[in-house]
Amino acid sequence: MNWETLARELTISTPSKIVLLVLDGLGDLPVDGQTALEKAHTPNLDRLAAKGTCGLTDPVLRGITPGSGPAHLALFGYDPFRYQLGRGILEALGSGVEVGPNDLVARGNYATLKDGLVIDRRAGRIPTSENEKLCLRVNAALKPPPGLRISLFPGKEHRFVVRFTGEGLSDALSDADPQKDHKPRAYTKALSPEAKNAAEIVNRFLDDVTGILSDLAVANTVLLRGFSKFPAIPGMPELYKIKPAAIANYPMYKGLAKLLGMEVMDVGADTKDLFDALEAGFKDHDFFYIHYKKTDAAGEDGNFPAKVKAIEEVDAFLPRIEALGPDVLAVTADHSTPCFLKSHSWHPNPFLLLAKSALADNVTIFSERAFSRGFLGRFPALQAMSLLLAHAGKLQKYGA
Amino acid sequence: MNWETLARELTISTPSKIVLLVLDGLGDLPVDGQTALEKAHTPNLDRLAAKGTCGLTDPVLRGITPGSGPAHLALFGYDPFRYQLGRGILEALGSGVEVGPNDLVARGNYATLKDGLVIDRRAGRIPTSENEKLCLRVNAALKPPPGLRISLFPGKEHRFVVRFTGEGLSDALSDADPQKDHKPRAYTKALSPEAKNAAEIVNRFLDDVTGILSDLAVANTVLLRGFSKFPAIPGMPELYKIKPAAIANYPMYKGLAKLLGMEVMDVGADTKDLFDALEAGFKDHDFFYIHYKKTDAAGEDGNFPAKVKAIEEVDAFLPRIEALGPDVLAVTADHSTPCFLKSHSWHPNPFLLLAKSALADNVTIFSERAFSRGFLGRFPALQAMSLLLAHAGKLQKYGA
Repeated sequence: MNWETLARELTISTPSKIVLLVLDGLGDLPVDGQTALEKAHTPNLDRLAAKGTCGLTDPVLRGITPGSGPAHLALFGYDPFRYQLGRGILEALGSGVEVGPNDLVARGNYATLKDGLVIDRRAGRIPTSENEKLCLRVNAALKPPPGLRISLFPGKEHRFVVRFTGEGLSDALSDADPQKDHKPRAYTKALSPEAKNAAEIVNRFLDDVTGILSDLAVANTVLLRGFSKFPAIPGMPELYKIKPAAIANYPMYKGLAKLLGMEVMDVGADTKDLFDALEAGFKDHDFFYIHYKKTDAAGEDGNFPAKVKAIEEVDAFLPRIEALGPDVLAVTADHSTPCFLKSHSWHPNPFLLLAKSALADNVTIFSERAFSRGFLGRFPALQAMSLLLAHAGKLQKYGA
Repeated sequence: MNWETLARELTISTPSKIVLLVLDGLGDLPVDGQTALEKAHTPNLDRLAAKGTCGLTDPVLRGITPGSGPAHLALFGYDPFRYQLGRGILEALGSGVEVGPNDLVARGNYATLKDGLVIDRRAGRIPTSENEKLCLRVNAALKPPPGLRISLFPGKEHRFVVRFTGEGLSDALSDADPQKDHKPRAYTKALSPEAKNAAEIVNRFLDDVTGILSDLAVANTVLLRGFSKFPAIPGMPELYKIKPAAIANYPMYKGLAKLLGMEVMDVGADTKDLFDALEAGFKDHDFFYIHYKKTDAAGEDGNFPAKVKAIEEVDAFLPRIEALGPDVLAVTADHSTPCFLKSHSWHPNPFLLLAKSALADNVTIFSERAFSRGFLGRFPALQAMSLLLAHAGKLQKYGA
């Protein structure tokens, strides 16, 4: 018996509303003795911390730094070890590429071929504008057999996503990548018998593209990695009997939300737009995932003052959520992104929950250290969803 | 390797004694800023908290509200997802019906049949006294074939428990219940091939009873739900090498204890009787489960003052346990029953442990919030039993 089985059995549909505000990469490490959260002036977060119940979550396991995929899956109650999203699918989702059940996707590089050897696996990091032209050219020139469609979608510099659409395409394929420069071009290999057809299609594609680009000196071949299919993953409406909405403005998170059966709302690029969207859609849904990216971006840049500012900026909008009167409000993060590391990390996330049935603890400051004394203790992010549903009255009793 | 396998391997029999006092439904939510535990005057619980080591347990999983069955199973070290007790068996245990390995039990309703349709699935909630007469009448009139025995046991209003005793009766049976009024009578269906015989027996019983009651206008047929067998569950003496006694005065908990191989002591209905029984049986056992129901009953009634009083009442008896000098004393709950919710909830349970080897922490008040700062932290109730056995010196080292 796991949480997923339990969720199917115990959840009920109710009118109660849950708002889950995810401040991406929120957790940090001290600079001059204070973390970004401790440094920031956050009257609203602090006030809510005093009213609510607090704790810390581990995104996946202690010490494990998660990518955005596993971190978000856990937060939505999906075991990130059970549902592994291939790099191809994440790259596709992150690039805003639509992926359906008949699609096989992979990450691609333009590369440089000379005298039968791949001499630069990144084609000198060609400009993105050049990449866009190449993708248009390849899409126009390819002539796949009936029943198959192939599309390239440009990314940054030499990177692209390729999508093969057809019946029964398996993703049990090895990378078509020589891994090192000065080696011959590599083909994919079927890793299981049913992937034989997909391997042939991919390898023909590799030859076709190399033919199409053969007049060029630099970006004249391609490599493919991380073949993946649309994962078989139950949607949140099915699992939890909720009507979830995603309020996010980055393709990656919108893609993930769509994959989990959330309705993705149209949202502008400003912080204000997130809360406008929440107000606009509040009556139509009962679960709202709001994704705020600026905290993570500042962490990735190692920009501590920017992170403090990003926290203060979102803090000012919290009264707009409160004014809507959700039954459950949670404020947390998917993972930490300490400025000092300039990358995701394994540090735990502050987790704040407000609801009538949530016991207020003695925590009065919204910070990593203060939350370690909270009533919720420290727990796996995978258990966040059951808490949200319980406090919203959407979870029935287990057993008699 | 799970705890059960480990327990079989590592437990040893010793003369040391463990007392586990379960204050049913103890945890609560604040009323005017204080929980029932915080409001109650509990000099003994507070004194023991100061001497002992404290923490909070999650009955099953965070956010999951357990029934009494799963909550108690976890506390006794049985994985509640592995051992699922059917509703029929719990109803039987709760009604004081003896259930053995050859028994198939189910929950029953008297119902009203008119013109071939079940027009009231609860027979107008007939008085319990009427129910008792009907059960006597049916038991006397039934003529089961050789090798089979069938008994009805009256419950409250229209409810009863039926027990079929015979060789090889499977409980893989669908409910014999039309689910809604104004539908024809329903028969059970075998859900697996080996349940075919049981299905025939049950369906003949349904027809026989309907025949026996055919002269009545209201309670003239029956429905059956939740067929269950006595579960295959290892006893505590076998798993832990202890000689356990149960001191409880509600049938449900006595039944559960019996199912786990505890000796159920005769106990009166007063709180005092629990402690008299403990003293009387103290020399004969090495593990004592004491069940105190009043805290839960007050919570279910939403009666905060009654809950405060129930806590204060049991607090006064604690010195009688201490006077016996058990090697380990634990005071905890099976689940929370906040007055505000008038039902079981998912909130964690205070867990107090006293033993020579238990590290006293800085907690000096017995309450939900104070215990969140305890040395034991927050842990699954399923790990309580190993702690009790360890502190009693009944658990050997794992590995060399």
